[in-house]
Amino acid sequence: MRIFISGFGNIGLGFFETLLIRETFLKNRYKDDPVTVVGVVDSKSYEYNDDEYKICGFCTIGSKKTTGRLHKDRNSLSCREIMDMVDFDLLIEAGPTNITDGGEGLENIRHALRKGKDVITVNKGPLALAYSELSALAEKNGCHLRFEGSVGGGMPIINLCNEALVGQRIISIQGIFNGTCNLILSRMDSGIPFEQALREAQQLGYAESDPTYDIKGIDAASKVSILANSVFNRNVTFSDVSVTGIDTVTGEAVRMAAEKGMVIRHIGEISNDKLEVAPRLIPKNHPLSVSGSLNKAQVITDMAGPITVSGRGAGKSETGSAILSDLIWIMDRRNA
Amino acid sequence: MRIFISGFGNIGLGFFETLLIRETFLKNRYKDDPVTVVGVVDSKSYEYNDDEYKICGFCTIGSKKTTGRLHKDRNSLSCREIMDMVDFDLLIEAGPTNITDGGEGLENIRHALRKGKDVITVNKGPLALAYSELSALAEKNGCHLRFEGSVGGGMPIINLCNEALVGQRIISIQGIFNGTCNLILSRMDSGIPFEQALREAQQLGYAESDPTYDIKGIDAASKVSILANSVFNRNVTFSDVSVTGIDTVTGEAVRMAAEKGMVIRHIGEISNDKLEVAPRLIPKNHPLSVSGSLNKAQVITDMAGPITVSGRGAGKSETGSAILSDLIWIMDRRNA
Repeated sequence: MRIFISGFGNIGLGFFETLLIRETFLKNRYKDDPVTVVGVVDSKSYEYNDDEYKICGFCTIGSKKTTGRLHKDRNSLSCREIMDMVDFDLLIEAGPTNITDGGEGLENIRHALRKGKDVITVNKGPLALAYSELSALAEKNGCHLRFEGSVGGGMPIINLCNEALVGQRIISIQGIFNGTCNLILSRMDSGIPFEQALREAQQLGYAESDPTYDIKGIDAASKVSILANSVFNRNVTFSDVSVTGIDTVTGEAVRMAAEKGMVIRHIGEISNDKLEVAPRLIPKNHPLSVSGSLNKAQVITDMAGPITVSGRGAGKSETGSAILSDLIWIMDRRNA
Repeated sequence: MRIFISGFGNIGLGFFETLLIRETFLKNRYKDDPVTVVGVVDSKSYEYNDDEYKICGFCTIGSKKTTGRLHKDRNSLSCREIMDMVDFDLLIEAGPTNITDGGEGLENIRHALRKGKDVITVNKGPLALAYSELSALAEKNGCHLRFEGSVGGGMPIINLCNEALVGQRIISIQGIFNGTCNLILSRMDSGIPFEQALREAQQLGYAESDPTYDIKGIDAASKVSILANSVFNRNVTFSDVSVTGIDTVTGEAVRMAAEKGMVIRHIGEISNDKLEVAPRLIPKNHPLSVSGSLNKAQVITDMAGPITVSGRGAGKSETGSAILSDLIWIMDRRNA
């Protein structure tokens, strides 16, 4: 299995490290199909296996970590042009999310699928905007398209719904899909104003310096759109989701909720006729009334009732290991 | 896929109903492999497809529900003898749990695997006592042995660990594996004495008239043993589990715990060097500090940290649908 990684920031590096950690496991599981990384691209630099240079795990990571760059400068090369220089079997798309037009990530995924390559993506933009097109393209070309890490990081919600719960009719999913928002709302429960809670989340490294993407609900809405398409077989895009951010939540509202035994949480909901992200009043003993930065989802099934799952919604090794679970899923089938 | 069902009580019937509910789904998914039930056995009666009689879903269920019996009396016939009268591909073992020697369930599973038939069991006794033998027998004969419904009913803990979390190293699992015990302990939080809480659980249909199996921790310990073998690849049996029941928990202990912000919960824990079921002090904000009859588990992974899952630990359609998920898993592979 020859892997090409597009996007070598926190997540791409995290996945690379995961491969190194699980080297023996993978060697034993796939004796006739060694896992190798044959190409790596980040925003400004790249490297791939050619006569001049062979990618080596520690060397590649070391170069990136010490200089912030891989060995060759991209200059004006597109990621697709670099892909075309390399023989590979599977693309891991871990580039920056672009929720407007999908950006280079969408082009990369299209390009790989058209070449008949399997794709694992944690890049939400392409999935939130063009899921139907991409899954049709994958099917047409006999490729796998997997994206467990795109929703909930280390929380295995997609594989839970589509595999462990196969055979259930899933009636709805409600969940906390953005840990930063939940952290801020949890702090507001203690009487801390929104702005201060946001600053704290930024200082702790949870929120970005421009927190719009999280607090306006854009990130959660992308995930809601992905779940609608992949679990409910709907055909929606990001813009179909009704979105309200947490910047509308006042300290006064939080206090009034508390008086009634409630908390305010930022809940995404998906069903056959609902597609929403909004702050909601939740009873304190409800499964989604949780504090802190975890992601949590409640899946309502027709035969087994409610099933909840929670996990860390972000993080290098968390998301890296979600990519690994997709890789194993694909390799099990390619090597069956 | 010709199915033979051994055990046609609540769970066996529940699975049968699940098949009827999902008839169209199964027909569409496996166009060339229709799912049929070709034999059903309960403790006293049976029926199978022969020239005289064809099993029909409603007819079989109707007979059982109206008369408590299937169409033919077993008399002295063993389930294995009835199995030998029928051509089938897969055994569903849903008979009564026997934790002393595995009982007829263990004999049935051995017999089916020796004949090269796939097996799905929700019967904990055979797994808790003879997991290694049975999984070796399955492997030797090229059969699948699946048992999602044996632990946690509708809570998909085994498939979560072994499939959704494949690639993770699972460090430990802690969980509430018996809903009846958790219901009783939850009621004791409100100051209700153990005996009264137990009576209530019996009146609500959660606890059996002989509640030993639940409150002494035997049921939870069976599940701990199954998880140790199937998720941790250990080679243990029921008797290796250190077990303390909830009948040792006093109202005084519950009150003292509450004063310290704690609750007492009946926790099963599995790791490479632990195998225990016991009442434990749990902080009120801990993920396992839950009330009611749900099952819940916290899985600690090396790369994604803690992942929790919860669901209904018992029930006809819950467990029936867990069997269905195993059936689909097997059929996907048999029809690949």
